[in-house]
Amino acid sequence: MTDPRDPVALTQALVRCASVTPNAGEALDLLQGLLEPLGFVCHRLRFEGDGSYPVDNLFAKRGQGAPHLAFAGHVDVVPPGERDRWQLDPFAGEIRDGRLYGRGAADMKSGVAAFVAAAAKLVLASDAPGGSISLLITGDEEGDAVNGTAKLIAWATERGERFDGCIVGEPTCPERLGDVAKIGRRGSLTGQLVVRGRQGHTAYPQRADNAAHRLIAVLDRLVRTPLDEGTSWFQPSNLQVTSIDIGNPAGNVIPGEATARFNIRFNDRHTRSSLERWLHEQIAPLVPDYTLAVSGNAEAFVTEPGRLTEILAASVEAETGTRPRLDTAGGTSDARFIQRYCPVIEFGLVGTTMHQANEHVAVADIEGLTRIYERFLRQFLASA
Amino acid sequence: MTDPRDPVALTQALVRCASVTPNAGEALDLLQGLLEPLGFVCHRLRFEGDGSYPVDNLFAKRGQGAPHLAFAGHVDVVPPGERDRWQLDPFAGEIRDGRLYGRGAADMKSGVAAFVAAAAKLVLASDAPGGSISLLITGDEEGDAVNGTAKLIAWATERGERFDGCIVGEPTCPERLGDVAKIGRRGSLTGQLVVRGRQGHTAYPQRADNAAHRLIAVLDRLVRTPLDEGTSWFQPSNLQVTSIDIGNPAGNVIPGEATARFNIRFNDRHTRSSLERWLHEQIAPLVPDYTLAVSGNAEAFVTEPGRLTEILAASVEAETGTRPRLDTAGGTSDARFIQRYCPVIEFGLVGTTMHQANEHVAVADIEGLTRIYERFLRQFLASA
Repeated sequence: MTDPRDPVALTQALVRCASVTPNAGEALDLLQGLLEPLGFVCHRLRFEGDGSYPVDNLFAKRGQGAPHLAFAGHVDVVPPGERDRWQLDPFAGEIRDGRLYGRGAADMKSGVAAFVAAAAKLVLASDAPGGSISLLITGDEEGDAVNGTAKLIAWATERGERFDGCIVGEPTCPERLGDVAKIGRRGSLTGQLVVRGRQGHTAYPQRADNAAHRLIAVLDRLVRTPLDEGTSWFQPSNLQVTSIDIGNPAGNVIPGEATARFNIRFNDRHTRSSLERWLHEQIAPLVPDYTLAVSGNAEAFVTEPGRLTEILAASVEAETGTRPRLDTAGGTSDARFIQRYCPVIEFGLVGTTMHQANEHVAVADIEGLTRIYERFLRQFLASA
Repeated sequence: MTDPRDPVALTQALVRCASVTPNAGEALDLLQGLLEPLGFVCHRLRFEGDGSYPVDNLFAKRGQGAPHLAFAGHVDVVPPGERDRWQLDPFAGEIRDGRLYGRGAADMKSGVAAFVAAAAKLVLASDAPGGSISLLITGDEEGDAVNGTAKLIAWATERGERFDGCIVGEPTCPERLGDVAKIGRRGSLTGQLVVRGRQGHTAYPQRADNAAHRLIAVLDRLVRTPLDEGTSWFQPSNLQVTSIDIGNPAGNVIPGEATARFNIRFNDRHTRSSLERWLHEQIAPLVPDYTLAVSGNAEAFVTEPGRLTEILAASVEAETGTRPRLDTAGGTSDARFIQRYCPVIEFGLVGTTMHQANEHVAVADIEGLTRIYERFLRQFLASA
């Protein structure tokens, strides 16, 4: 039986579960087996439907009063890929030269282990603070993420849980432990634009209405028109055309229809629906006949600096000597589901090897992260 | 045996040959059988190679001195298409309500028949003028046109023939006999542009170089930049984008390569090589890495009004009461091959039904065209 206060042994035990997304039941069993003796009330929640596969999740809570701190993370991992490219077994959790190797070592079994170990130390200490700690652990962050964290936090909220803050344990540090914490993410939206004109012969353009020419004019406008100049916490929003497809094989035929697809990464100046309005405003004056389909459910969000970020930054500084830079760069994460309910910050290990062969993390960093989480928990739960 | 002076019977006989391109041997046999008794020296010329199929052609000449007038035409036809859409057999040459029906009735067996009949009347008349008449009849104008008129006129020139003018008997009249003669054609050029950038993730556009964005900028410039404002005899040159193809299925990937195709219809201000230079001048400043492939062998040309056009216009006016409008509109024709050797004009029947089901021509128009051609021949051969 793993000692829940030992984050390195716990990371190794979790890596050995080989929980390729979304099959994380064994890893969740392991966590539940450690948390229940510590006084955590555990709920295993199987969510399904909404066009995706069923997923096993764990909600674990200890305590009743405020402040209530949530930790969110996942124990599913991406597949290891070609085994030949790994120098060690990706599911053995071996340690070499001070590094713990394996799929999920960085993303993010070590983060979950560090938090469980920090909570265990706190719970077992003679001077444990009050308040409540909840863990929201999903088995599907790397896949569809439809039946994972989004439904887990909605379920908890429906049964009356209120969170004063949440920390997501994803790897956030680009170079060394403590250099970056993420307080938000850009949103992402995908659009498909179909422009219709009138087909004709290239010798008689006056009788036709070239859909390619209309699309070129619209795309030129979309690409050249700045969405904004950035905000306090975000770089400027950006539109990238990802494909244009007409598929007209006839060199003397003016095309009557043309399709483009694009992706917008946007900051907190916009929402999906405000961008949809903006797109129609740009397109409609240039094209009488078009169809625009917009998809994507990742809205931009930011947790403005406050109590949560300040306590985390202070804990990191106390442990590492440097305050973390607060950042909003990168792709989406499960934090986007949590930000609707409470302030959320992401902070974890150095993630440079995540999703790669020979994924690994420094053993010393797992221990350092555990100390940061423990310090953070003490301060957050002590204050009101 | 058809009377060569009867253009209607001759059109019917030619329609019945069912000479779907390029199988026009039987129709050429028919013409040769009529022309030789009239004193025409006939050469059957089978050209082949240069990436196309073999084609049967006829060169027929009567007389030796100047002026030397050439008539160019074709006896191949496009396929009839779905038989159900024809009210009469497309290869029967039937006459109903003053109209002669059949594939090739307008394009352009009637034109060939009218010229042969006009020449026959002239030759058999007591007051026949001097000079020489040549017919250049191909079996491949509707197909590749590689082993047809281009090689026929080159062959004749190589053996010493010099032409003072050429009339092409294609249908040129949009509404009624005599309304339009064509003195030139725009050129046509097809381009394929491949633009290369650097692939990347849509979340990190600063690390990529979006090939779609570069292509949009180039095409916007090409479409917006006027090539010219037209010339004395031509409308402005025009570029039409016919296809854009990227084929990137991934909504979060910035494409590294993008392809566009376009067609330019150009007037006598340009040549294929001057346009190729112009294209590079437009593209190079906007795209560091691209490939441009240009194809098409139809240069623009015009026969400036002179003796040939004046005599034709006067002949049309004498017969119809109206001078024809001299025009350069429309697609390419075999006249593009002839313009390198001598002044060339295109004049024939009303072509509204060409290439369609129930193709037909007015019997009265065949007779009118024959009188115009006869009048034209008399004047052209009499003058020096």
